[in-house]
Amino acid sequence: MYKAIIDVTLKQSVLDPQGVAVKGSLHSLGYESVSDVRIGKRMEVLLESVTLAEAERDIEEICKKVLSNPVIEDFSYQLEEVA
Amino acid sequence: MYKAIIDVTLKQSVLDPQGVAVKGSLHSLGYESVSDVRIGKRMEVLLESVTLAEAERDIEEICKKVLSNPVIEDFSYQLEEVA
Repeated sequence: MYKAIIDVTLKQSVLDPQGVAVKGSLHSLGYESVSDVRIGKRMEVLLESVTLAEAERDIEEICKKVLSNPVIEDFSYQLEEVA
Repeated sequence: MYKAIIDVTLKQSVLDPQGVAVKGSLHSLGYESVSDVRIGKRMEVLLESVTLAEAERDIEEICKKVLSNPVIEDFSYQLEEVA
């Protein structure tokens, strides 16, 4: 069994309105030192694949086709064997 | 300047309907090897703090009070100095 931890983030060139809103809230709460906030997703996927190569092939495909929008988002993942 | 990368995840005991939905979609797309999906948030916060201790104190407070709901969520963060 393998566990993939996937980070999906907006590309640097894409405006992040959710991050801008959170930054504004933090400022109004007194956290003036905050100069930027970007918000993305973190997903954990458990795979019952037999080999690491199999798990890697599936997770790469899943990230590209399902979990991210390649036009505006980047993804990265870490894959580890779990008991 | 410091950059914090914050992961906010639902506690293990809390049901994740978004994750269940994504798992269902992946199954219907043919990814039968996926046995569990949990979805959380990943946030990047830039802080103009002068010292690491100052940045740490702020980010700890921000995570606890603003970015996570301690009743149902856990958080973790990494803090690093950036140019």
